[in-house]
Amino acid sequence: MNSAELFGNIVKKRSFLCVGLDTEVERIPSFLSKAKDPVFEFNRRIIDATHTYAVAYKPNVAFYESSGAKGWISLEATVRYIKETYPEIFVIADAKRGDIGNTSRLYARAFLENMPFDAITVAPYMGEDSVTPFLSYSEKWVVILALTSNKGSDDFQYHTDNGIKLFERVLSVSQKWGTTDNIMFVAGATRAAMLKDIRKIVPDHFLLVPGIGAQGGSLEEVARYGINSKCGLLVNSSRGIIFASDSQDFDKVAARKANEVSLEMEKYLLAARLI
Amino acid sequence: MNSAELFGNIVKKRSFLCVGLDTEVERIPSFLSKAKDPVFEFNRRIIDATHTYAVAYKPNVAFYESSGAKGWISLEATVRYIKETYPEIFVIADAKRGDIGNTSRLYARAFLENMPFDAITVAPYMGEDSVTPFLSYSEKWVVILALTSNKGSDDFQYHTDNGIKLFERVLSVSQKWGTTDNIMFVAGATRAAMLKDIRKIVPDHFLLVPGIGAQGGSLEEVARYGINSKCGLLVNSSRGIIFASDSQDFDKVAARKANEVSLEMEKYLLAARLI
Repeated sequence: MNSAELFGNIVKKRSFLCVGLDTEVERIPSFLSKAKDPVFEFNRRIIDATHTYAVAYKPNVAFYESSGAKGWISLEATVRYIKETYPEIFVIADAKRGDIGNTSRLYARAFLENMPFDAITVAPYMGEDSVTPFLSYSEKWVVILALTSNKGSDDFQYHTDNGIKLFERVLSVSQKWGTTDNIMFVAGATRAAMLKDIRKIVPDHFLLVPGIGAQGGSLEEVARYGINSKCGLLVNSSRGIIFASDSQDFDKVAARKANEVSLEMEKYLLAARLI
Repeated sequence: MNSAELFGNIVKKRSFLCVGLDTEVERIPSFLSKAKDPVFEFNRRIIDATHTYAVAYKPNVAFYESSGAKGWISLEATVRYIKETYPEIFVIADAKRGDIGNTSRLYARAFLENMPFDAITVAPYMGEDSVTPFLSYSEKWVVILALTSNKGSDDFQYHTDNGIKLFERVLSVSQKWGTTDNIMFVAGATRAAMLKDIRKIVPDHFLLVPGIGAQGGSLEEVARYGINSKCGLLVNSSRGIIFASDSQDFDKVAARKANEVSLEMEKYLLAARLI
């Protein structure tokens, strides 16, 4: 998928919502425990209920890896289900991988070749050769961590060399490794005002914005500072949608939550005259 | 395992060798392809042949993940085999993980609880709350990336704030999150001279040093600049040992290579009067 197609889907759905499939086994409604693969069954119902309001899904790989090989089977089943059933939806492996070139190549194979993910999140610490192997797949993306939404983002991301913060350097240097059709950046919603500075460095790139909902970021601020002429935003919500209820109709409650978020997004898309 | 026990093993084996189990499926000798689990079978033979010369093994998770669920089964079988057969050997999951606290906790569970790894490598970009969940397990370690051995380490690790390079800040800040009994740092052998500066910041910590062998780092230099009063070094070699031969006796050739490296290490341990 390229950025024009992604923007096309945003216009069509009047939403730039990414639903985070952070499917913690312990939080799956108990009546699903009899399913053959409860994690997949939970995800499938969430996806079927919310796909109208979402342009992207983002399973965080840790939630699957914590169940070992079984978790990998659930992860693979989930991404295959999405791409086979709703092929226009963008699916991001939130894996935060990155290693020396020879090794990143194998992570790229795992997520972008063996599984049909459209994108994978990557940590930039190890630099260019840790990221570029992910860029060798046509129509696939890397999403590079720039400014994250957690408290620890203060520790190193603001390290300032000649007035340039580390996350700003990550943006300015790593955008040269690819294009606006294969690189996005993570920019946390808990620092929404920083999006203004980020947009000065990467005016045209898509930003993946975690941190609204449970982490406390404001969607209104994210839209105000982050939206560009092609929307340029995928805003993620995980727990606030998928674990909104643990009753029999958890999927319907999730859909209602996703719809609420998407209606707010529609307002910002209208205000920006993008729809 | 604590640092005194690890040093004890180094003294006993007269070696600070870590063998990297970067078991690329395509490079396994073809006669093993009929085994039920060729990756595990390869690893088992390498481990049985080299354990006399090694104090640690380090599977890089990418090589397993690239085979999906099957790869995870091989990885788990490998670490269980080592800890059951040679319990004194230190086993590092080279996973380079790191996410917001809530999520890192699940990565910690995957590697330190569900699997019996002694340690996991972690990328520091997201800061304290991405690392500390790994430190809540008694006798387990995190190995934090400081200065890596690849070309891309130039891109961000030397970003300098008030004279302090990013990798130096990582060392000085993150050592406060734990102790010399649960934190190590990655310091690449391809920048061996930098070990002198690194030792000024972390004189007492163990360093995990990749990059000798195929990546070109010098063991002699690593020992010269990196060794401390408790050795304080685990030096990794992967391809140069495990893929030294693809013949029927590949394990014997690997043992010979491992022995060569360990004999050189013995020389440096003697010179430092540690044995």
